[in-house]
Amino acid sequence: MSAPLRVGLAGLGTVGARVARLLIGRADALAERCGRPILLAAISARDRNRWRGVDLSALPFEEDAIQLAGRSDVDVVVELIGGAEGIARRLCEAALAAGKHVVTANKALIAHHGRALALRAEEKSVALNYEAAAAGGIPVVKVLREALVANEIKKIYGILNGTSNFILSQMAATRRPFEEVLREAQRLGYAEADPKFDVDGTDAGHKLAILAALAFGCEVDFEGVYCEGIARVSPADFDYARELGYAIKLLAVAEANEAGLSQHVHPAMVPLGTPLADVDGAMNAVVIEAEPLGKLVLEGLGAGAGPTASAVLSDIADIARGARAPAFVRPASSLKRAPRLLVDENEGCFYLRLTVVDRPGVIAEIARILAAQDISIESIIQRGRDPGAPVQVVMITHETREAAMAEALRGIAQANTVLEPPCMIRIEAF
Amino acid sequence: MSAPLRVGLAGLGTVGARVARLLIGRADALAERCGRPILLAAISARDRNRWRGVDLSALPFEEDAIQLAGRSDVDVVVELIGGAEGIARRLCEAALAAGKHVVTANKALIAHHGRALALRAEEKSVALNYEAAAAGGIPVVKVLREALVANEIKKIYGILNGTSNFILSQMAATRRPFEEVLREAQRLGYAEADPKFDVDGTDAGHKLAILAALAFGCEVDFEGVYCEGIARVSPADFDYARELGYAIKLLAVAEANEAGLSQHVHPAMVPLGTPLADVDGAMNAVVIEAEPLGKLVLEGLGAGAGPTASAVLSDIADIARGARAPAFVRPASSLKRAPRLLVDENEGCFYLRLTVVDRPGVIAEIARILAAQDISIESIIQRGRDPGAPVQVVMITHETREAAMAEALRGIAQANTVLEPPCMIRIEAF
Repeated sequence: MSAPLRVGLAGLGTVGARVARLLIGRADALAERCGRPILLAAISARDRNRWRGVDLSALPFEEDAIQLAGRSDVDVVVELIGGAEGIARRLCEAALAAGKHVVTANKALIAHHGRALALRAEEKSVALNYEAAAAGGIPVVKVLREALVANEIKKIYGILNGTSNFILSQMAATRRPFEEVLREAQRLGYAEADPKFDVDGTDAGHKLAILAALAFGCEVDFEGVYCEGIARVSPADFDYARELGYAIKLLAVAEANEAGLSQHVHPAMVPLGTPLADVDGAMNAVVIEAEPLGKLVLEGLGAGAGPTASAVLSDIADIARGARAPAFVRPASSLKRAPRLLVDENEGCFYLRLTVVDRPGVIAEIARILAAQDISIESIIQRGRDPGAPVQVVMITHETREAAMAEALRGIAQANTVLEPPCMIRIEAF
Repeated sequence: MSAPLRVGLAGLGTVGARVARLLIGRADALAERCGRPILLAAISARDRNRWRGVDLSALPFEEDAIQLAGRSDVDVVVELIGGAEGIARRLCEAALAAGKHVVTANKALIAHHGRALALRAEEKSVALNYEAAAAGGIPVVKVLREALVANEIKKIYGILNGTSNFILSQMAATRRPFEEVLREAQRLGYAEADPKFDVDGTDAGHKLAILAALAFGCEVDFEGVYCEGIARVSPADFDYARELGYAIKLLAVAEANEAGLSQHVHPAMVPLGTPLADVDGAMNAVVIEAEPLGKLVLEGLGAGAGPTASAVLSDIADIARGARAPAFVRPASSLKRAPRLLVDENEGCFYLRLTVVDRPGVIAEIARILAAQDISIESIIQRGRDPGAPVQVVMITHETREAAMAEALRGIAQANTVLEPPCMIRIEAF
């Protein structure tokens, strides 16, 4: 059996501790499967003495994680610190510069600095593996890099944030408002104390930018992702969605054509009976449309210590077995920024929910504003009439350009008869 | 760039032709992604002159496929001939003996001779890759071999035969009988002229045996798979299933515990709203329950030239990149036959549909037969009463051992008041 692969592990939070436990507890199975032992050689963490479910006291400990990059007894640095900048970034850069392989679960880091890190890895002929950064436990990086190597990918989309999917699923099941469900999610540990990046689409956007780069062979372009969060979705929208045959999901969609790359994250109406409609709770899912493969759906846990550690171990094992693929499918030096296709250019149908004064001519006024943008209405639902009181009107439009919809929404918001800011949710046809 | 990987391709049917077109048409992308060119070096087929959508006339052609194994200008033999014995088997054995890598899409071959071939590959330190043999375009072999390397797998199950899933989906949608839908599937090209292996569970059984070996690190044991086909399912069962909240699917399930391995293929009631219930038409799906990953669902096309060719190319590309994993996760020499857990030992709930004489005491008699086996009834549906005429009675049982159910069914079939052989379908709880 060959010499062991020696791992330097930086970050011993819940994920790092689980990685350490797997490396030690499943050492025999890993050695058998990889053809060589994988050895936890050195560690670094903020708190040296906290118990991690396994005895790490005999291991070399670095107060400063960056020092792991320089250790001669480390072949691969596993970065589980997090954050796009700071120690995490400096550690990965130092490790690659020192000719060490790097494994990271850090989506912000890869979304912001993916190409620069891939270039350094390529120069040193070492691996930059980040399976856990794209969709947690779902092995979509491996699938895009390796399994779909002969395919041309048309579109990749999915549910990439477990916190917001948990919140939307709970709202659908209980019809409680966003803020209330968010507080419950925080109590249950499904949402962090600062949930901003989860509910505003940033986290899903990080992952989408990584997946798009892998799928379309271009530079990671997180700044090019249009992000819209879930805070605007109200309980009433779930009633109408169900009635119209849809579920509401925070969707991440990337699509490429000759003109460029479109990347957007936003709440969307997803037809019931399609694979994403039943993806509930903390589950994530990715759908890949490829030629000649056709449609491939991957569904699993996108976060949590177990799924994340599973992905990190897969990345380490690939290095142990000598399996190497370019970080973003093709050589980093040939990765180019794809022209950005703005969300304004998208075409689709839209769901509109308006709170209006209940008096004659109101619908006619709204229809006139839509018609001025060449938007035609497929169906209207109005119910719960109570003369004089505000009434909810829901409309589904025929296919139209998003720019026209945005212009119409500005007009509708200004109408005297419209009492609240209009709620618009895109409908995904697939 | 390194020396090209030279491919000898045996079998130029629809899959082989698609593989040839991809190797030639996407040569540049493949070379860029693999770090070296992949070259179609020699071919063999029954009919030399048929047009395959690409000009192969300048390639060395072997009348006898076995000769590909001996060619010094071939590094990897791709076997797309099919069949568990005959030329396909001899070619793979000869190729491995000659130290060539082997890629095959041949599920019957791997299901029957997987361990023997893996041993030969290991002796010669070459790859035995068979991604297309397990679930067509779904990259489940790669996921089990590589992505889940640190996991312990508890259960693997899914819908592994597109033909029978197409037939069941059509029966559910149109309530037409099995034979009629089968003929339609044959007209549409979804079923072969001889559909036996697809509809009797053999094809799904081949794939299940392969997946079980990968999941549980044991020898492939196709003979240990309990197989039951879909011919007994009648249109009425779909009505009752829908009413009770189930879809009917041909399910393949493998589960391992300390006592051994249970492998079975049979029609099953699958709860609506679970991932497999919405897998319709020619789609396949695999669900893996693993620790620490949790549940992972993979859904895609399990057959067809495009998906199969995509999987074959992935296998070839892995060899080109030098990525090597043991054929069945662990070294072939350490693969052992797992003790067989018979289907009789399974526990579960059952759906029973009986055609009985409509007179007092009939249900009491059936209930007595069930009670004698300690089987209790959860619910009964009886409808469409027309005094004197036969009536359908549907029962759902509480959890019971399959052996007890089989004994009760023998008793029920012999009762004078029961007019047709009883229909039993297992209920999968997940």
